[in-house]
Amino acid sequence: MKAQVSIIMGSTSDWPVMQKAADFLNEMQIPFEVNALSAHRTPEKVEAFAKNAQSNGIKVIIAAAGMAAHLPGVIAAMTPLPVIGVPIKASLDGMDALLAIAQMPPGIPVATVAIDGALNAGILAAQIIGTGNEEVYKKTVSYKENLKTKIAKANEDLALHQFDYRTN
Amino acid sequence: MKAQVSIIMGSTSDWPVMQKAADFLNEMQIPFEVNALSAHRTPEKVEAFAKNAQSNGIKVIIAAAGMAAHLPGVIAAMTPLPVIGVPIKASLDGMDALLAIAQMPPGIPVATVAIDGALNAGILAAQIIGTGNEEVYKKTVSYKENLKTKIAKANEDLALHQFDYRTN
Amino acid sequence: MKAQVSIIMGSTSDWPVMQKAADFLNEMQIPFEVNALSAHRTPEKVEAFAKNAQSNGIKVIIAAAGMAAHLPGVIAAMTPLPVIGVPIKASLDGMDALLAIAQMPPGIPVATVAIDGALNAGILAAQIIGTGNEEVYKKTVSYKENLKTKIAKANEDLALHQFDYRTN
Amino acid sequence: MKAQVSIIMGSTSDWPVMQKAADFLNEMQIPFEVNALSAHRTPEKVEAFAKNAQSNGIKVIIAAAGMAAHLPGVIAAMTPLPVIGVPIKASLDGMDALLAIAQMPPGIPVATVAIDGALNAGILAAQIIGTGNEEVYKKTVSYKENLKTKIAKANEDLALHQFDYRTN
Amino acid sequence: MKAQVSIIMGSTSDWPVMQKAADFLNEMQIPFEVNALSAHRTPEKVEAFAKNAQSNGIKVIIAAAGMAAHLPGVIAAMTPLPVIGVPIKASLDGMDALLAIAQMPPGIPVATVAIDGALNAGILAAQIIGTGNEEVYKKTVSYKENLKTKIAKANEDLALHQFDYRTN
Amino acid sequence: MKAQVSIIMGSTSDWPVMQKAADFLNEMQIPFEVNALSAHRTPEKVEAFAKNAQSNGIKVIIAAAGMAAHLPGVIAAMTPLPVIGVPIKASLDGMDALLAIAQMPPGIPVATVAIDGALNAGILAAQIIGTGNEEVYKKTVSYKENLKTKIAKANEDLALHQFDYRTN
Amino acid sequence: MKAQVSIIMGSTSDWPVMQKAADFLNEMQIPFEVNALSAHRTPEKVEAFAKNAQSNGIKVIIAAAGMAAHLPGVIAAMTPLPVIGVPIKASLDGMDALLAIAQMPPGIPVATVAIDGALNAGILAAQIIGTGNEEVYKKTVSYKENLKTKIAKANEDLALHQFDYRTN
Amino acid sequence: MKAQVSIIMGSTSDWPVMQKAADFLNEMQIPFEVNALSAHRTPEKVEAFAKNAQSNGIKVIIAAAGMAAHLPGVIAAMTPLPVIGVPIKASLDGMDALLAIAQMPPGIPVATVAIDGALNAGILAAQIIGTGNEEVYKKTVSYKENLKTKIAKANEDLALHQFDYRTN
Repeated sequence: MKAQVSIIMGSTSDWPVMQKAADFLNEMQIPFEVNALSAHRTPEKVEAFAKNAQSNGIKVIIAAAGMAAHLPGVIAAMTPLPVIGVPIKASLDGMDALLAIAQMPPGIPVATVAIDGALNAGILAAQIIGTGNEEVYKKTVSYKENLKTKIAKANEDLALHQFDYRTN
Repeated sequence: MKAQVSIIMGSTSDWPVMQKAADFLNEMQIPFEVNALSAHRTPEKVEAFAKNAQSNGIKVIIAAAGMAAHLPGVIAAMTPLPVIGVPIKASLDGMDALLAIAQMPPGIPVATVAIDGALNAGILAAQIIGTGNEEVYKKTVSYKENLKTKIAKANEDLALHQFDYRTN
Repeated sequence: MKAQVSIIMGSTSDWPVMQKAADFLNEMQIPFEVNALSAHRTPEKVEAFAKNAQSNGIKVIIAAAGMAAHLPGVIAAMTPLPVIGVPIKASLDGMDALLAIAQMPPGIPVATVAIDGALNAGILAAQIIGTGNEEVYKKTVSYKENLKTKIAKANEDLALHQFDYRTN
Repeated sequence: MKAQVSIIMGSTSDWPVMQKAADFLNEMQIPFEVNALSAHRTPEKVEAFAKNAQSNGIKVIIAAAGMAAHLPGVIAAMTPLPVIGVPIKASLDGMDALLAIAQMPPGIPVATVAIDGALNAGILAAQIIGTGNEEVYKKTVSYKENLKTKIAKANEDLALHQFDYRTN
Repeated sequence: MKAQVSIIMGSTSDWPVMQKAADFLNEMQIPFEVNALSAHRTPEKVEAFAKNAQSNGIKVIIAAAGMAAHLPGVIAAMTPLPVIGVPIKASLDGMDALLAIAQMPPGIPVATVAIDGALNAGILAAQIIGTGNEEVYKKTVSYKENLKTKIAKANEDLALHQFDYRTN
Repeated sequence: MKAQVSIIMGSTSDWPVMQKAADFLNEMQIPFEVNALSAHRTPEKVEAFAKNAQSNGIKVIIAAAGMAAHLPGVIAAMTPLPVIGVPIKASLDGMDALLAIAQMPPGIPVATVAIDGALNAGILAAQIIGTGNEEVYKKTVSYKENLKTKIAKANEDLALHQFDYRTN
Repeated sequence: MKAQVSIIMGSTSDWPVMQKAADFLNEMQIPFEVNALSAHRTPEKVEAFAKNAQSNGIKVIIAAAGMAAHLPGVIAAMTPLPVIGVPIKASLDGMDALLAIAQMPPGIPVATVAIDGALNAGILAAQIIGTGNEEVYKKTVSYKENLKTKIAKANEDLALHQFDYRTN
Repeated sequence: MKAQVSIIMGSTSDWPVMQKAADFLNEMQIPFEVNALSAHRTPEKVEAFAKNAQSNGIKVIIAAAGMAAHLPGVIAAMTPLPVIGVPIKASLDGMDALLAIAQMPPGIPVATVAIDGALNAGILAAQIIGTGNEEVYKKTVSYKENLKTKIAKANEDLALHQFDYRTN
């Protein structure tokens, strides 16, 4: 199946963080691709990628970068597709990357998620595809339901702690 | 026509900023609605809104808030629709709102734009709808083209400045 | 005995920090309960909890959360009980959580303590209960007295260091 | 009637901000007093005040200060009463005061509200007194209800804006 | 004469700040050109500019941008010429632009100056050209000497103030 | 009389802030001098000043600078006299100057006061001279006493406000 | 011999940092004392210490504290002696302590050194005493001279590195 | 061959970071020298170095320092050569050094690179020399080309990860 989401990283060292986006899309069975493209070191490849993404069937782009994180914004400048930016914590606790992605000037938005927030980038990509795809929409609804059961379980453990105190 | 985008504000004082999102959607002829709902003062209304948004035909929610800006995240917790968060500059230059919106924990993404970045929120909403709507997609492509002509014009003015220097 | 303080966490991973609040309340013999409730993943449970807390006998709520920490504010929006917020250090050294809890907009206060300041949250809860409960008030007075003796002891150790220098 | 809340300011220049706490308490008919006491310029008076507050009938102290805002913490060190700290914006957008009040070390809590958050300090004081006073408790419940009607009204205005767009 | 320095701005609204760089180069009689090019709105023009700058005789590029300031880094990615970045204060006191320019990842440097530091950008450009151009080098030496006389004059004014005190 | 304190500014534009230090020293009748010397524009003069300060009878140096505020540290590097640094608010709310003065590396201290804290610099200079000069010491004691009376007066005004509320 | 410098810590856990001040004073043979006193836990002892310090022969006080670091300011409020504040890194990389010490309001200065800058606090104390004590003054001059020889030695090592490159 | 680039460090502990600049210049066969000179501990040597650098054949100076990083600015004040500043991460994640280097006042620029950005400092030095030296210019062009092949290789690895997902 053709990829609908493209995960782009400024550096392969971002992969351990970005894997969570890939794992989520895999779990949702949304086809995706993964590439390392640097806004600074391979600008021509970034341009070729961004300009052809829509005609290649991509619906949403997830772009991750650290430090002066230009990749998401540079891609967003060259495609009308929605671009999700993931600030990577590489210096200054990731604050530099957060600002370099979120503070885009008027005209070119990047949908920014939390520092190292790759899972949320994957979920957001699914939600965006879900706005025009009933099947994907239903999967995101199910995912949301499952989050609650995890919390319920966690609470059972805490109940035990609480019990310890009460018996004192 | 039924609204496809819902613009929500924590306070009506956010309207002068958020108007840019409304103006853009209007220009793109994407039907939208505008409401003031506070995560803190009207939590029940927020819940009712969020839970019914999808069945009411809403595809994307734009939520703006300042200070400890909970509104976008609270709405995102109650709907599988993509939620765009606009941090409003009300204190600390808007840094508090940016962090309170962007730094969402794993499981519940908010697509954050720049501080007071209402125009970009509108554009992003259009791009998201465009992933499943060919007509809207084409409008976002046209919009992008127009950005370039504005810059071209701006450059002509600068050329004049430049001329002044050269003749010195 | 019925719980008078309710300790709520956004995630069970906050327990090692929050245990200090529980330990303190235990030491003060103030009955309390502990629950994991996520503003984002289990909003309905949060609502049910918050709306019933007062009639269940709770006098003070301690709510802890990290990142874009909405839990304390969301609970405060749904109960007239005083809510103490504990910012958890999960990213950005906890600055994001501190701002997301302390910078609440006018109308809905959260009594914010230091980043990871669970012990102080416990003490503050006791002080609040003490305003209407003579017995608890006396315990907080005793606790304060004991703090001084700890410092006195610490000073004896330092006196030894000092001695080392003097004899040089 | 004897004051139950004491509003303390580091400087009389804080009064325009702190007036909102006084106005709220007045509206709630909770008796209060207002004083200027500086942790740095009148330490003895601060001490005398703090040590006698409880026996003078005070239940909650609201202390406001800017810059290296020591006043709330210094008072909290000398009384077992709950102390609410209001960081005043005097430099660095109030970030210095926020940290100097919120980041209290273990043992001595200060219930911190937002920068210049005097209204919330007043509400929190009422909530604290309400934990042991049914009448005050009911007033805080009413206040919360009224917040919703203000939002409802605000929404009517926005509905008009919305109408303007729709008719375009 | 052919331009040796190219001053590029993300927006013509940066001109009042960047004019100081132009004025300095004018004073030094170093030929320069001024253009508005946006990394996000006119990426193709940025590319064409950057790739041809060296063969067009440009020796140094000064690029200014605000917010998530990508322009200097994007140009630096496409030319081996030294690029001087000027962070423009447009939001967050310019801290976002400073980080988005200075924190470039390994491989692609941008020579960053202070927020709104256009004059220093002009001086730095002259110093760089001066490393291979004796005439320009001498002009930068003269400029440095003149700075001292300005301070000397300023001191005379202060001496008067001082005098006032002494006679008291 | 020979100056005992030397007030140095990086720029004469700092004078409106630094005047408070001069006024205080004048009031204390401690002889002082005022000069504008730039660590960056007149390094030789800074050196000459710093190396001769002690033999010229100076006991304490107050140095003020904004932005990347090097002046206090550069002077401290060239004299064994205590140097008081005043960070001037010129950009970034003065945070850059505060860090550039306070964060001196091991070996060369600068006694840093608050951003724009010229009055405190003057008081600190007097306190330092007072450690070896009984007369000056007594003046600083008197000054401290007077601070209290100012607060007392301020409190009378507040008492009036309070009265207004009580009569409601 | 009677102590001339008093080193005060908010907590004995600050000792490993503060030891560098003690070591320096020891090396300079300036008599000193070391005590743990908490502004929050032992306010009465702090007051007794501060009020008697001058008559006990103390000339300079070094006070260290972390988080909302009130100790230096609280002591400074109660003594006309110069107080040196050392911000201890306990949370937020020490930024909270730096601001809580440096940003003292007008009237009560604290001579702030770098985060964890205990050595510089010791040197500054010696410089202050040196303004009224020729013998101590000479020691600080010697210390400064010795700093240079350490750098000279360090440079010899680097020369070796350099050699390695040159032979390539 | 005579050194064209001079790498200066405030402390030999900066060598592990700065080695990357040396390695790059070595690879480019640009002759360079390495020295430890402290703006604060050896000001006379810094002055001697800076004033003679140009006549000694140096074309560009790279200066690294941490904390209140004055070295680059102090050198820049004494030479018309371009000075590249490398902020070293020694405290506050390097933010103090970044501001103390980048925020130079008008008149004396420092070409600032990223925190610990020694490689970029080396590249920038080569680019600056390349503006007047065809041979060095060509080397910087080749280096840029090589950056792309590294990314291409990295992408092959990622392609494998992608494959793993597809086969699931």
